[in-house]
Amino acid sequence: MKTQVCIVGGGPAGLLLSHLLHLAGIESVILERRPRDHVLGRIRAGVLEWGSVKLLEEAGLGARMRKRGFVHEGTYLASQNRGFRIDFKARAGHPVMVYGQTEVTHDLYDARDAAGGVVIDRAEGVTLHGLPDTPHVTYVKDGTEHRVDCDYIAGCDGYHGVSRQAIPTSLLKTFEKVYPFGWLGVLTETRPVSDELIYANHGRGFALCSMRNEHLSRYYIQVPVDDPIGKWSDDAFWDELRRRIPHDAADRLETGASIEKSIAPLRSFVAEPMRWGRLFLAGDAAHIVPPTGAKGLNLAVSDVHYLSQALIAHYRDSADDLIEGYSDRALTRVWKAIRFSWWMTTLLHRFPDQTEFDQRLREVEMDYLEGSEAAQRSLAENYIGLPY
Amino acid sequence: MKTQVCIVGGGPAGLLLSHLLHLAGIESVILERRPRDHVLGRIRAGVLEWGSVKLLEEAGLGARMRKRGFVHEGTYLASQNRGFRIDFKARAGHPVMVYGQTEVTHDLYDARDAAGGVVIDRAEGVTLHGLPDTPHVTYVKDGTEHRVDCDYIAGCDGYHGVSRQAIPTSLLKTFEKVYPFGWLGVLTETRPVSDELIYANHGRGFALCSMRNEHLSRYYIQVPVDDPIGKWSDDAFWDELRRRIPHDAADRLETGASIEKSIAPLRSFVAEPMRWGRLFLAGDAAHIVPPTGAKGLNLAVSDVHYLSQALIAHYRDSADDLIEGYSDRALTRVWKAIRFSWWMTTLLHRFPDQTEFDQRLREVEMDYLEGSEAAQRSLAENYIGLPY
Repeated sequence: MKTQVCIVGGGPAGLLLSHLLHLAGIESVILERRPRDHVLGRIRAGVLEWGSVKLLEEAGLGARMRKRGFVHEGTYLASQNRGFRIDFKARAGHPVMVYGQTEVTHDLYDARDAAGGVVIDRAEGVTLHGLPDTPHVTYVKDGTEHRVDCDYIAGCDGYHGVSRQAIPTSLLKTFEKVYPFGWLGVLTETRPVSDELIYANHGRGFALCSMRNEHLSRYYIQVPVDDPIGKWSDDAFWDELRRRIPHDAADRLETGASIEKSIAPLRSFVAEPMRWGRLFLAGDAAHIVPPTGAKGLNLAVSDVHYLSQALIAHYRDSADDLIEGYSDRALTRVWKAIRFSWWMTTLLHRFPDQTEFDQRLREVEMDYLEGSEAAQRSLAENYIGLPY
Repeated sequence: MKTQVCIVGGGPAGLLLSHLLHLAGIESVILERRPRDHVLGRIRAGVLEWGSVKLLEEAGLGARMRKRGFVHEGTYLASQNRGFRIDFKARAGHPVMVYGQTEVTHDLYDARDAAGGVVIDRAEGVTLHGLPDTPHVTYVKDGTEHRVDCDYIAGCDGYHGVSRQAIPTSLLKTFEKVYPFGWLGVLTETRPVSDELIYANHGRGFALCSMRNEHLSRYYIQVPVDDPIGKWSDDAFWDELRRRIPHDAADRLETGASIEKSIAPLRSFVAEPMRWGRLFLAGDAAHIVPPTGAKGLNLAVSDVHYLSQALIAHYRDSADDLIEGYSDRALTRVWKAIRFSWWMTTLLHRFPDQTEFDQRLREVEMDYLEGSEAAQRSLAENYIGLPY
């Protein structure tokens, strides 16, 4: 098989890249290791920056999002069971959109299918060859090896994927921070406790009240990352959540049986550079953020934005400066989101080694945020997304 | 001797309180352990918030400050030898005043002397009696014990003073953070390298370019707090300073013999509450900040502002709600300055255990500050001083 861009990974980054290239008349093939049903069933983050919303709309992917997504013009922050609101629109000019990554992936598959895009799932043993300058890719499907000849490879295959690992370690610089706690997340068929998200700091640890729609709530509490999931009965979860969120929210919290429950670790990771010759990395293949700032999917979207611009300039204008500058452009924005996610994570969580001074600092920072328009603007401009 | 308010400590907090009470017709006596020359010779911080400037001016203490002080409308921040400016006036509406604590103390002694204020220096063995409700103070001067009967005691005698120690430890809650480094400060008779301060973060550690006047410069570099001062020849100091500040500043740095050189530790400390019956704490007696945000003297001024208002309301209007609320009002502002000083210290210094991720975060935060008006506003409003 021959194509212009071979995309490794059929998650939202790879699908969106394929779609944007298609709109510019550039051919691509997506290789995905898992069955499509698995990809579509993954539960992930749910907050889209306004820049991500605009990009999806301009790419013709906005129809379901407009119908099913929820525009949030602000969020609540809480400290020691008392909350206050930050108005994104007033402070930074735009809202965010609550629309799950699962839904975005769904829309992207629909769009790729409608355009006759090639998405090969259950592609095993994907291997990158001929890098950095004369790439091709091989994979095995149903027991047969296949080869894809291509001009470029886009590594959109996540942290554990083969793309980043194809770059010699001597050329990669990595940065990492592992946070000493995890998030216990619960999905329930209950009405959300609040019409906007509540991010809560408490001496007992962080909590987040989120939602998928009017009848589907997503709640999280900070727990030791090595807690056995069996330790957390639904009742134990609800009791602990109530202790950490604002009293008025705790009073009206609607509880129910969990339909999904899991503990996820939190970490920050960056690999530099994001290009090696004709191989590009995008999304989780190059960087991981803790979920606190809701930046993971949005960074994948901005990487893909820069990468699609670079490839379009190459094919349309024979100009390669955007290809050469891709890594720097993407990383500049990535690091700002890494910083914001780290700051928000640090502000809102309880660290095992923290002192009373540290906890008081967090409470004082929340007080300052409540009273300072400048501090609210700074949070809001990062949360809704810094400009591309 | 009998007075209304016995003030322990003849530094700027005690002197200013005595002066403000005098203007409202309230009698006070100041007891200072050291000889006056010693107090006047101490070299301390040099940046006044605009609120401090206004308060000093309104109290008739502005004449020399207006002549000899330097209005700074901004400051430079630097990261990895490259600087940018934050405009305080544009971002937060006011400048700051560079005018040394030594000068403020000088002006306060002049004002107290002119008004016939009682400042007893070399008062040894100061002891507080009858607390919390029926206070009197004893001290020894020239071998003779004296007694001061009073309505209230104001503890303005610094961290090591007797006032905070007079409060039972069971009633005091203390918060502390010791930073794992010190500041090596050098005073030289050279022209300042910059017309405004330069705060520099560098992989090698923090540096600060400051000044007292056109011919007197004050520079600092972060060093291990236990470094023997003898390790730092003038040449070694200048070499290290040059490595950390912006290249253009390093090129034009004028060096000379140090006329003062010392290493100071950095720490944050807060004691709560700041009142026990008829004893009040103000300034360093209740809290310590690292020098990074230039908040130490300014917090003493705001404490004294709240305390003088409370005492004036008591004597003039027989209203004690401000006395009862003094600790809460003062601490609310203290904690915000504690947070800001901690943030600025953490952002700008190299920590012994920091990773490459941590250092990159600092550089990224400096980039973000350079590019974000909101982040600059937040820094500026804290630096020029949050409202009383």
